[in-house]
Amino acid sequence: MATVDRAEIQEKIKVQGEVVRKLKADKADKEQIEQEVAKLLELKAQIGDDGAKKFVLKTPKGTRDYSPQQMAIREGVFDTIISCFKRHGAETIDTPVFELKETLTGKYGEDSKLIYDLKDQGGEILSLRYDLTVPFARYLAMNKIQNIKRYHIAKVYRRDNPAMTKGRFREFYQCDFDIAGLYDPMLPDAECLKIVAEILQELNLGEFVIKVNHRKILDGMFGACGVPEEKFRSICSAVDKLDKTFWDDVRTEMVDEKGLEPSSADLIGTYVKQSGGTELIDMLLQDERLSKSKDAKEGLEQMKLLLRYCELYGIKDKVLFDLSLARGLDYYTGVIYEAILKGFTNTPSAAGAGEEQLGVGSVAGGGRYDNLVGMFDAKGKNVPCVGVSIGVERVFSIIEAKYQASQIKSRTTQTEVYVVSAQKNLHEDRMKLCAELWDANIKAEHSCKKSPKPLTQFQYCEDMQIPLAIIIGESELQNNVVTMRNVSSREEKEVPRDKMVEEIKKTLRDLQTQSK
Amino acid sequence: MATVDRAEIQEKIKVQGEVVRKLKADKADKEQIEQEVAKLLELKAQIGDDGAKKFVLKTPKGTRDYSPQQMAIREGVFDTIISCFKRHGAETIDTPVFELKETLTGKYGEDSKLIYDLKDQGGEILSLRYDLTVPFARYLAMNKIQNIKRYHIAKVYRRDNPAMTKGRFREFYQCDFDIAGLYDPMLPDAECLKIVAEILQELNLGEFVIKVNHRKILDGMFGACGVPEEKFRSICSAVDKLDKTFWDDVRTEMVDEKGLEPSSADLIGTYVKQSGGTELIDMLLQDERLSKSKDAKEGLEQMKLLLRYCELYGIKDKVLFDLSLARGLDYYTGVIYEAILKGFTNTPSAAGAGEEQLGVGSVAGGGRYDNLVGMFDAKGKNVPCVGVSIGVERVFSIIEAKYQASQIKSRTTQTEVYVVSAQKNLHEDRMKLCAELWDANIKAEHSCKKSPKPLTQFQYCEDMQIPLAIIIGESELQNNVVTMRNVSSREEKEVPRDKMVEEIKKTLRDLQTQSK
Repeated sequence: MATVDRAEIQEKIKVQGEVVRKLKADKADKEQIEQEVAKLLELKAQIGDDGAKKFVLKTPKGTRDYSPQQMAIREGVFDTIISCFKRHGAETIDTPVFELKETLTGKYGEDSKLIYDLKDQGGEILSLRYDLTVPFARYLAMNKIQNIKRYHIAKVYRRDNPAMTKGRFREFYQCDFDIAGLYDPMLPDAECLKIVAEILQELNLGEFVIKVNHRKILDGMFGACGVPEEKFRSICSAVDKLDKTFWDDVRTEMVDEKGLEPSSADLIGTYVKQSGGTELIDMLLQDERLSKSKDAKEGLEQMKLLLRYCELYGIKDKVLFDLSLARGLDYYTGVIYEAILKGFTNTPSAAGAGEEQLGVGSVAGGGRYDNLVGMFDAKGKNVPCVGVSIGVERVFSIIEAKYQASQIKSRTTQTEVYVVSAQKNLHEDRMKLCAELWDANIKAEHSCKKSPKPLTQFQYCEDMQIPLAIIIGESELQNNVVTMRNVSSREEKEVPRDKMVEEIKKTLRDLQTQSK
Repeated sequence: MATVDRAEIQEKIKVQGEVVRKLKADKADKEQIEQEVAKLLELKAQIGDDGAKKFVLKTPKGTRDYSPQQMAIREGVFDTIISCFKRHGAETIDTPVFELKETLTGKYGEDSKLIYDLKDQGGEILSLRYDLTVPFARYLAMNKIQNIKRYHIAKVYRRDNPAMTKGRFREFYQCDFDIAGLYDPMLPDAECLKIVAEILQELNLGEFVIKVNHRKILDGMFGACGVPEEKFRSICSAVDKLDKTFWDDVRTEMVDEKGLEPSSADLIGTYVKQSGGTELIDMLLQDERLSKSKDAKEGLEQMKLLLRYCELYGIKDKVLFDLSLARGLDYYTGVIYEAILKGFTNTPSAAGAGEEQLGVGSVAGGGRYDNLVGMFDAKGKNVPCVGVSIGVERVFSIIEAKYQASQIKSRTTQTEVYVVSAQKNLHEDRMKLCAELWDANIKAEHSCKKSPKPLTQFQYCEDMQIPLAIIIGESELQNNVVTMRNVSSREEKEVPRDKMVEEIKKTLRDLQTQSK
């Protein structure tokens, strides 16, 4: 319905409403009132206003609430990741959720259309951050920071086509670790790989492989295969699709859409099928075509060093040099990598072309970007950077699915003690007791009802998996004791009131030791 | 400069640029070229385009980055607050940073103008959340949740006039704890006050008082003083200014701006000057005017119960019943409260009227809102709620100022061990050693340079307050030992390589015990 129609009808409703009110006030004929009320209702029906509230109760498209269950999973995942970042000496920073629009302009190529803009309400023109890397580069340039090892965990925003069951949202967490600074080749790069390996190991998601490649090897290979330089980036983004589509389709895109010589495409085909370790690098260094390219040689030498460092860090068996790895973002200048869960490895038949940004099994990615900070510096001064981003939304989905399959209900609170009253009207005694527990730093709850039923209270303990209950009734109060109950075994024992805190702490320690 | 002028000049620059290029290509007379270049530069100067990049390197107005130092403070504050919430058995949820615009409409009265809207880029019309309470109510209604004790820590957005040195931002954290559910009177309300008291005690910010009042007492008082019902809310918001301005100014606002009878205003004046405990409540229950008001009596009886419960929770000395406390938000229906640091108590002369939303010393506030969830339910079904919001930005500012005054530098990393190489080219040995430490869950770092100077490495340990250094040189490698150094005492000892991890863990435990 057009707005103008709607406004017209609303005006009519207003007038008709007054007619009805006046008739009622004048105590007019009942039938006459009923007639006019009917007219009023008919008008209201036209615009769907039947008096009930018409809220659309939903979160915006591509976003979700996190329930306490989901938050418990999220907390566990973040704890693991943050512990690893801190184990490697990282600091953390935070930046605003929005940036000046111009800060983001010219950083994301074609994907810029996915940026959320804020409405111009006067003042600065703002956009929601698209990733954490560009704000990080802005932060470094703005504060003239030359060296930092930092992590940043925060939400980013993309007006993309959501695929929420696969963990692709319009609002999602990024979990970034980056090392900025002018250092010796591959030393920070190898530490990023070590971090990815540690995190994936600890998250216990199954077997994984970290594929690595180098932008210079790709560029050198493209040059050696006869790709004109201005087509490097677009051919690179075609190669990037190899993890989710067949070579034949990628070849067609190169030749038909992007106008590449068929012979060049076929040459590229022979390279991107290869993956391996140091032996592959040595072979490629001897390769007639590649060995003529300065870029390719430099990239291959660096890759060899990286694999050596991965060996020293004890993660050689997790790392695979893969010539088909390209990664979409324009700003990478050196090493690029992507970690893939083997249980979820994409077969080209499993997903349509362009259906997914990342393969389903992809859980981390990153690379070196030496020129991004310079884009923010007045004199173009660069700070070399390398970093990794953990795909936590994918990780959340996988762990949620695991919980659902196992039917294990994770706890959403950490309550250690529930204070139960055995008879009515003991709420004041429960309150005094709880205050004592809280002040002793024991996690405790009691009912917000004055006289809850004992059965309801015990049921709550079991539902929430609270290990201990402290029960008070008239006899306990008279004898200055409490009854302590192990909720799962239902064993009970009497404890003197002045030993209660001590006894609870001891029992909790014992229970913890047992469960280990 | 108007955009159209700018475009005109840019066009001229383009043309002039071509003139210069053509002259150069034609190897024209040098003087002629110089003349034309001068014209070009003059044009460029007009629009300030001197070739350098013209980025404005800043965060949006009213927002800020958090440095690692600030993040360390933030983490400490959140840890304290979250521990307290968990000690009381709270679960946590999260909601998207934006909501459908209509979700926020009609919830904030006059302040709605401060809501950030997103640009209409097709699809839904969205706004950034203004607080965490309305999204919480939406979450409860949407998921038909009747009972929950939850906390939510997240950023909210208000296009307000920022006063950043006072901790007032356009993007700021809220830290909310709420109890939803139909319970017995004042039981959840008292727990919220207990939580505020515990948190402020543990944050160690100095003496504080939690002022409490009740919307029904206020409404009853207004009625008894002859305020017409339709003026209750506007007179209430005038009373709300008493913490930052003189009574005379509030009276003027009531009489001159809001058209209240001078006699009514004077009567209000006699009440709002009063504060106290149970004895004041008893007196007011006998008050000739108030005792005639059903609302006032009900509110006073509830207040009496609340103070009784505060006594049981051991926080009676922190709570003050204060008739001048009004709080701005429309949605409160029962108890309201606000915690104030005594060291920062506002004197009316210290701040102009309307200068601050909250008094400088205000660090927490909240109240009961029984009708908000019903606004989202199709059948208007309510879920009674009471909650508290900790003003963490204010807390951050106070703690930051403390650190600055004390000149104590808080640590921004948790690194326990720095691996130092005593000679050149030992980076591979450092890497192997670090991998061993990381795999043993020891927080360790080493230089990203192949051959860093020993002095630089030791300096880094001291700057970053890293407690231990593990030093390796040729002799250590030959003898299969490492040198372990206590960074602050500079004591060193030799440790067999295969005892290293064990020895480090023991030393770290000892250091921790000493520092306690």
